[in-house]
Amino acid sequence: MDERLKKQFDFIKEIDKEKFIQRQTLLTGGERKENDAEHAWHMALMTVLLSEYANEKIDVLKTVTMLLLHDIVEIDAGDTYCYDEEGKKTQHEREQKAADRIFGLLPDDQCEKLKNLWIEFENAETAEAKFAHTMDNVQPVMLNDATDGKMWAERKIKLSQVLGRQKNTPKGSEILAEYSYNNFIKPNVEKGRLIDDTQKDS
Amino acid sequence: MDERLKKQFDFIKEIDKEKFIQRQTLLTGGERKENDAEHAWHMALMTVLLSEYANEKIDVLKTVTMLLLHDIVEIDAGDTYCYDEEGKKTQHEREQKAADRIFGLLPDDQCEKLKNLWIEFENAETAEAKFAHTMDNVQPVMLNDATDGKMWAERKIKLSQVLGRQKNTPKGSEILAEYSYNNFIKPNVEKGRLIDDTQKDS
Repeated sequence: MDERLKKQFDFIKEIDKEKFIQRQTLLTGGERKENDAEHAWHMALMTVLLSEYANEKIDVLKTVTMLLLHDIVEIDAGDTYCYDEEGKKTQHEREQKAADRIFGLLPDDQCEKLKNLWIEFENAETAEAKFAHTMDNVQPVMLNDATDGKMWAERKIKLSQVLGRQKNTPKGSEILAEYSYNNFIKPNVEKGRLIDDTQKDS
Repeated sequence: MDERLKKQFDFIKEIDKEKFIQRQTLLTGGERKENDAEHAWHMALMTVLLSEYANEKIDVLKTVTMLLLHDIVEIDAGDTYCYDEEGKKTQHEREQKAADRIFGLLPDDQCEKLKNLWIEFENAETAEAKFAHTMDNVQPVMLNDATDGKMWAERKIKLSQVLGRQKNTPKGSEILAEYSYNNFIKPNVEKGRLIDDTQKDS
């Protein structure tokens, strides 16, 4: 049993590094950027509170676990900013290698379970994976709105880019996608923090 | 429904502040201290991996949720270092007030659910609460060991203090308490990073 525990704690110690993986989202207050561990914690609690709005009934523990671990690969592969088209070309390969190494620290049964959950998230086909992606899309726009669209304005992000990034948000929850658009995205277009390049009335 | 969603997102936005509540534990690498959100994320994943060692069968989602939210009160009440005897005198009252305000942002049903889960954690009587405390005790000693007992040595912490703090660890899991003592605490006594004031052979 000590060997099993050693493997589990090797993994637990290794993932401490996720706390150093910086994202591109500013925290409320705008003083510093979020890291992956904080992001995952936030979305896990959001899932507990918002699962009632999932299009299909979801297994909450499975979704929470998926969100807690979905960025662990970035310990090796780094965070790829959602509008970094170059970085996205090699993202899959880098992340696959990272998954093999990091989940490979665990005992075989848990390695398989967690890696499969990560693959399920990546494939975005099950009810849980679709809802997890809804959380992963809504949480940063909420924070972007909370910081008065500072990051969007600084990087001259266009509405079409945000909408492109949000195209799968309704697949997990139409209600949350609509709420997020109306409350976090649209007001920033109206304030000029997001460039409206969609030629439509906002 | 929009009113319910507004309340839920008011809470979700408010708890972003937990990412600024600094704990007294150094992260691996020893460069900076951990914050509450990172700590909660780490323990939530630990629970998924280590629940098999609980003395009594636990509801994993309930335990994970409890750990995700257990430090939210510190947004108002601050982190009280586990060896700060003065701070601990007013801790309960400060945290109770904080719970009323912060969980009070939620719709009534979710406010009640989350606040009760926090109270259950504080009372430490159910299987889930006892296991959550085991996680809350084991995670920092694991990190203290990973940083070569730096924080213990700097603050001249005594073994009796650590053992006092760990007295309830076996209540959630005897196996994890024993593993933690043998692998994270005892080696630091042997290396002189923790002062042995127990007059026993270590």
